[in-house]
Amino acid sequence: MDILIVGAGNMARGIATRLLAGGHPVHIAAPDVQQAQALAADLDGDATGHLLSGPGDAGIVILAVPYPINVTLATEWGEDLADRIVVDIANPVDFSSMDALVTAPGRSSAEEVADAAPSARVVKAFNTTFAKTLAAVEPLDVFIAGDDASARQTIARLAHDGGMRGIDVGHLKHARELEGFQLLHMMVQDQIGGGFATRLTLDRG
Amino acid sequence: MDILIVGAGNMARGIATRLLAGGHPVHIAAPDVQQAQALAADLDGDATGHLLSGPGDAGIVILAVPYPINVTLATEWGEDLADRIVVDIANPVDFSSMDALVTAPGRSSAEEVADAAPSARVVKAFNTTFAKTLAAVEPLDVFIAGDDASARQTIARLAHDGGMRGIDVGHLKHARELEGFQLLHMMVQDQIGGGFATRLTLDRG
Repeated sequence: MDILIVGAGNMARGIATRLLAGGHPVHIAAPDVQQAQALAADLDGDATGHLLSGPGDAGIVILAVPYPINVTLATEWGEDLADRIVVDIANPVDFSSMDALVTAPGRSSAEEVADAAPSARVVKAFNTTFAKTLAAVEPLDVFIAGDDASARQTIARLAHDGGMRGIDVGHLKHARELEGFQLLHMMVQDQIGGGFATRLTLDRG
Repeated sequence: MDILIVGAGNMARGIATRLLAGGHPVHIAAPDVQQAQALAADLDGDATGHLLSGPGDAGIVILAVPYPINVTLATEWGEDLADRIVVDIANPVDFSSMDALVTAPGRSSAEEVADAAPSARVVKAFNTTFAKTLAAVEPLDVFIAGDDASARQTIARLAHDGGMRGIDVGHLKHARELEGFQLLHMMVQDQIGGGFATRLTLDRG
């Protein structure tokens, strides 16, 4: 399946690095085609940069853009995303306070994406992994939620190929807990000296 | 400050083990005094078992009981808990489905305890640490939420003394994210071969 990463920022770089490390070619698309091409050229492996237009032939579309741009894109593309795996990585954090989510209680960014593109197979993943930890190609836990079990398995396999452990947390509604905890993970970076380069892991002692 | 642990189950054992390891005496109280005394006798250090009656002289009351018994107790004790640090460790998980919390969206067990005993200094802590990981006296992260900063610091110091890292996540409302994520942590134990003995940690790579 062709993989399209939407966005050419740090998260796009981190996720692309892992996919390429696992031997998977990636297409990177951004509104600024030069930025997309520059990122593709900077990566090791089969990466190409494109002007953002639509999902093209991609079976997997990774929305490596901030909330609510992910929801806007899903709304615009709508039925063009039918049957594709759409990966939402966003954290809908209130960056002015860094103390709350901007989504309503009992809702999540991923569910809003799914509502905007109801024929897509929406998966939440990579929201608890910082860009630096992805780019470092060290072991990481990737928590995966989605209502389509085979879509979750596909993303778990990509994570595995890239040196990560996919942890399947079930239905898409559990994106709420993933997005909630990542708020705390971001909040405490100064306190724990993390520099947005820490890993959230579930380990045996 | 005297420390009272309410409950004599596995979590009471785990938390008491850590407090005693840090050199802090503990009182353990349960409806079955023999169970409380048996646990106290089984621990290394200055532990005593008591019949559960009230908070006594304890400046710190750790509710090592399941939800909603914690809320019932806070309601019954009410003003007797005034100015005391009350630690809520509960996870309000729907154990029939193991797929949801029983609390309403935008609410938490800890906030219900605080509403039931509004003069208490309620702190959420130890809800993401499994009993086995506590009893093993290995390094652990303990996430601490509460509206009283000095109460959070007191619990962080106790955690530190017991070989753990206290991570201050701010206001009590953040118990929502702590309780939410622990649902996922419990859900995936089979999948990751955890046996309810894994650690949730924020580490540098």
